[in-house]
Amino acid sequence: MKTFRKELFMNLAERRWYVNITPEVSACIEASAVKEGFVLVNSMHITSSVFINDDEPGLHHDFDVWLEKLAPHAPTSQYRHNDTGEINADAHLKRQVMGRGVVVAITRGRLDFGPWEQIFYGEFDGGRRKRVLVKIIGD
Amino acid sequence: MKTFRKELFMNLAERRWYVNITPEVSACIEASAVKEGFVLVNSMHITSSVFINDDEPGLHHDFDVWLEKLAPHAPTSQYRHNDTGEINADAHLKRQVMGRGVVVAITRGRLDFGPWEQIFYGEFDGGRRKRVLVKIIGD
Amino acid sequence: MKTFRKELFMNLAERRWYVNITPEVSACIEASAVKEGFVLVNSMHITSSVFINDDEPGLHHDFDVWLEKLAPHAPTSQYRHNDTGEINADAHLKRQVMGRGVVVAITRGRLDFGPWEQIFYGEFDGGRRKRVLVKIIGD
Repeated sequence: MKTFRKELFMNLAERRWYVNITPEVSACIEASAVKEGFVLVNSMHITSSVFINDDEPGLHHDFDVWLEKLAPHAPTSQYRHNDTGEINADAHLKRQVMGRGVVVAITRGRLDFGPWEQIFYGEFDGGRRKRVLVKIIGD
Repeated sequence: MKTFRKELFMNLAERRWYVNITPEVSACIEASAVKEGFVLVNSMHITSSVFINDDEPGLHHDFDVWLEKLAPHAPTSQYRHNDTGEINADAHLKRQVMGRGVVVAITRGRLDFGPWEQIFYGEFDGGRRKRVLVKIIGD
Repeated sequence: MKTFRKELFMNLAERRWYVNITPEVSACIEASAVKEGFVLVNSMHITSSVFINDDEPGLHHDFDVWLEKLAPHAPTSQYRHNDTGEINADAHLKRQVMGRGVVVAITRGRLDFGPWEQIFYGEFDGGRRKRVLVKIIGD
């Protein structure tokens, strides 16, 4: 069994943003030389997500409006987590809706994807450096 | 390491529906001859889900009412994704709540499940042919 | 390829509660002797979750208030699942938001985690014995 590991670095100026990381994950698969297996891609932070959906800016706007409705940032005093001095409790909740990460099949050395699937990093508490883990196992 | 891959085809008349695909996944495991490993089951489309919950029609009704409350289909004009000519933005959101797919352990050649776990395909934008990926790795 | 399997037992007096199970999962990885691979940790029940977030009591309170707002327990008559004699339909919904389980990378014999990641069991219908599956594959 072969394994491969790489960290991707994110540093977004905005509090919330969505970045297509599919090319970086594909490059990892090529570098791993794994032809058949699984790739795990997950945020190493608990206020951001890795998820699979559509690369369409209108949809990303919709995600953002919707997540803010489900788990509003303000008033920050509504969350007990923010009593610790943080103001990012909403980011911990938003990340649960969008998920920590994804497992994707690798077939014949490539991401085994449907026609519109793309991998995104979803930032909900930006303005600082964060990491995404790519781990591959297979043959 | 053995690997196995199969696509399941779904074509539901309804916009939203829930289908138990556990027998099809179990048949894949048997065909793979894998005794110990992981099976990944995921929708290859970004407006549907694969998830694990209870095979109880009342609960599926509750899922449907609840998802429509969290991410309503209408008015379709509330979503910027629908400016592209689509009317399925809500399906992209609903799929995030229910998840893209599941990873299940295989032990002694079978799904390693608790007493009530069953695998479902959740359709949120039906009326056309879609695919579910089953990928198995193990020994 | 090595594999390892263990069940963890949970029996919480409260209807809803959050338990840090990271030490138990780490002990499984050590016992497995797997240095590079994946560990799957999932609830074997469909009214509880395994997820990764912060070990901070204020945040767990926030999760609880938020989940109760998204999928209220009462009135229990609002859910058709509860016509079966159950009163736990809300727990089936809450578990979808928080997820069934997680896949975590194992690197150099340890959980490959960011600085704050911890694994939690989330109970939404307690008062009885439940199980969590830990399954490891790798070399």
